[in-house]
Amino acid sequence: MTTDRTVTRGGARRTFHLNAFLMGVGHHDAAWRHPRTRPERITDLAHFQELARIAERGRLDSLFLADGLTLPGNARHNALGGFEPVTLLSALAATTEHIGLIATVSTTFNEPYHVAREFASLDHLSRGRAGWNIVTSGNIDEARNFGLDEHVAHHRRYARAHEFLEVAVKLWDSWQDDAVVLDRERGVYADGGKVRAIEHQGEHFRVAGPLNVQRSPQGRPLLVQAGSSEDGREFAARHAEAVFTAQQTLADGQAFHADLTSRLAAYGRAPGDVRVLPGICPVLGGTEREARALEEELTALQVPEYGLRQLSGMLGVDVSGLPLDGPLPELPDEKDINGNKSRFTLVRELARRDGLTLRQLIARLGGGRGHRVFAGTPEQVADELEEWFTRGAADGFNIMPPHLPGGLEDFVDHVVPILQRRGLFRTEYTGRTLRDHYGLPRPSAAPLAAGV
Amino acid sequence: MTTDRTVTRGGARRTFHLNAFLMGVGHHDAAWRHPRTRPERITDLAHFQELARIAERGRLDSLFLADGLTLPGNARHNALGGFEPVTLLSALAATTEHIGLIATVSTTFNEPYHVAREFASLDHLSRGRAGWNIVTSGNIDEARNFGLDEHVAHHRRYARAHEFLEVAVKLWDSWQDDAVVLDRERGVYADGGKVRAIEHQGEHFRVAGPLNVQRSPQGRPLLVQAGSSEDGREFAARHAEAVFTAQQTLADGQAFHADLTSRLAAYGRAPGDVRVLPGICPVLGGTEREARALEEELTALQVPEYGLRQLSGMLGVDVSGLPLDGPLPELPDEKDINGNKSRFTLVRELARRDGLTLRQLIARLGGGRGHRVFAGTPEQVADELEEWFTRGAADGFNIMPPHLPGGLEDFVDHVVPILQRRGLFRTEYTGRTLRDHYGLPRPSAAPLAAGV
Repeated sequence: MTTDRTVTRGGARRTFHLNAFLMGVGHHDAAWRHPRTRPERITDLAHFQELARIAERGRLDSLFLADGLTLPGNARHNALGGFEPVTLLSALAATTEHIGLIATVSTTFNEPYHVAREFASLDHLSRGRAGWNIVTSGNIDEARNFGLDEHVAHHRRYARAHEFLEVAVKLWDSWQDDAVVLDRERGVYADGGKVRAIEHQGEHFRVAGPLNVQRSPQGRPLLVQAGSSEDGREFAARHAEAVFTAQQTLADGQAFHADLTSRLAAYGRAPGDVRVLPGICPVLGGTEREARALEEELTALQVPEYGLRQLSGMLGVDVSGLPLDGPLPELPDEKDINGNKSRFTLVRELARRDGLTLRQLIARLGGGRGHRVFAGTPEQVADELEEWFTRGAADGFNIMPPHLPGGLEDFVDHVVPILQRRGLFRTEYTGRTLRDHYGLPRPSAAPLAAGV
Repeated sequence: MTTDRTVTRGGARRTFHLNAFLMGVGHHDAAWRHPRTRPERITDLAHFQELARIAERGRLDSLFLADGLTLPGNARHNALGGFEPVTLLSALAATTEHIGLIATVSTTFNEPYHVAREFASLDHLSRGRAGWNIVTSGNIDEARNFGLDEHVAHHRRYARAHEFLEVAVKLWDSWQDDAVVLDRERGVYADGGKVRAIEHQGEHFRVAGPLNVQRSPQGRPLLVQAGSSEDGREFAARHAEAVFTAQQTLADGQAFHADLTSRLAAYGRAPGDVRVLPGICPVLGGTEREARALEEELTALQVPEYGLRQLSGMLGVDVSGLPLDGPLPELPDEKDINGNKSRFTLVRELARRDGLTLRQLIARLGGGRGHRVFAGTPEQVADELEEWFTRGAADGFNIMPPHLPGGLEDFVDHVVPILQRRGLFRTEYTGRTLRDHYGLPRPSAAPLAAGV
């Protein structure tokens, strides 16, 4: 039996979620060379304010910034070295009203007290629009900025991440919702019994608490996760409320969605508790031919040396000396990869499936670093999104415009209206917080043991 | 021979600097109970935007936020648990144009890569208005939020702080000023020889670099320091460009200024390289009597239990069980104090000099936690500031309004115009960056050894 997945049991039309994944002047690695961008703006707040305004005009759920604790790739051939995500989103909180603000922060090279605190602060600043994309840092170059010569092993990073989350949640809950009584007459600001030490003692962390930021509008930030390895999926099933993922085909997307959903019950969660958002880099044109021409124009601007370095990073294997028109070399198994395991496998499978040379592979990865690139008209892009949504591969999409701000503007002005006409996407914000936009509940603060 | 210290050798009138030290709804610990405040606004960005607008209207040099990595004092009796400083100042960067933004961040419980990065990011966001108040965290409760049972010893904290600064400066300098060439035609974004690894290997840190934020408008944030112990003074003499200090009397202020200045030569620095800003809590009234009435009104609103707890924290000695109308107990020597040494000595001397009971001491500390409190008319406050400035105790002042926003508004609208008429303070912003406001140079990036 097949059912129309766009209609809920109650008969209301189910709608999807859209996240604007912002990155410098675009996701295509040659975007900075394209005449539609102004790469001098990657360190200009006004550029990001413009992007936020466009996304808010389109009623998108959220903005998202990726992050790494190293200078990624090669600054010689790409516009790199822009803002740190939490500071940038804090600034954008001041000039936006509705849109969610999701920052990536690593659990491997941070302390839970700092991280819990900065997200509580961002949630207050934005009146309930903060989200945290939890990553474990897949790169040896990041480790080398924090006193290590070797990268922390994959499973150990995840073990730390689990405990990190546990501590962060305890800290967010260390002020109960009704802790602030503000009784001027009696001189009582907060109920001492509702602001509690957490006295966490674990394998990785010992943290006394309470947090020094009071409970924020959302209780805690929206928890987002983006790794699709075995460890990553288990982490997502246990903690995440939204998942960003790179899926090349509808079938892969469906399999991932089904797999993740099947893991929820083990953690006492229901199928609707997590939103899955595959990435898509929409290369838009008024006609399909125009869209393809833009894609080719961007490919022609790629610097092969940069592409090979990026590819080496994704694979954890140095391919920089190899001939561009030859194939990928023999590669190790995913189990022997200590970096981003799921991206490694995706790239290897992509090259294998389509029999790509290095040059072709670099061209395919240039737009979305492994995320799906789709060139077409607004109508065609809308069809794609609808198909992935109705056929169970997505609850929404991580929109990765190839160039910015133009690519986001094109999406918002030409694709979003089609989605709205089809009843697939909101026409106005109906909620106030990021959790409201994603249709997720606000957690209440569990009472704790020790008072202060 | 005495000289008029307000006139420089070139004959131009020397002016001073004003920093607005923001804290919740005011520096007085009973401010939240006073009818002129709205304590529900301590987690409201709009409150701080209003404060920033007022300070900018007064042409103040900077805003400043203190910080501790624990819930300070007792939330039962004070409006605590507000914003984290860097996120809040990032948000304020978006809605201010001129004023400097100085955030406190500890070197004891942080990593230099994160801190260098967040200040570079804030400096870009604000187009060159970032400042870092460097602290070493004087409190065992902070250590307990970061896995420690004992606090790190005072001299070890400072040893770490020195190396932390060294690494941060290397990271800020890892992108040379002219590193970004942005040659779209040739596909060269940055000159690879001007973006360099730092490969720092020290006792406390190993950091590869380069930083993943490109060189910011000021090159590096304004470096501020606020500890006045022996270690603190040496640290300031070596690294700081502005120093916040608590001084109760003109003579103490003069001695501190002279002492700090005398230490500069040992680090190859000139007397004019550092700005010294004593704190002052101005309790303003249209008449002296009105000012004193406000001071008494605030004192009457103090909660003794809170005051004793604060005092215990400053002294590192529990005084909470002692009779309010008795004297301070016997206290240890400064050398045996592992917290904030200079504040300990200041409080002990204040009680000893004026023969204060605990109740009287709490009242005296309620306004400024050891900083000078001065109740008077705008004219009297202006006289005080002028005297401290012309007699060599200050290059500017850290203004700590007892209640906010009203106390800052009173200062800006009634004291600043007097200072401007006397030629002691700017009437318009003439510079663009925080360094410009303080009359300090922009450092150039030293070329480094290893390329990337």
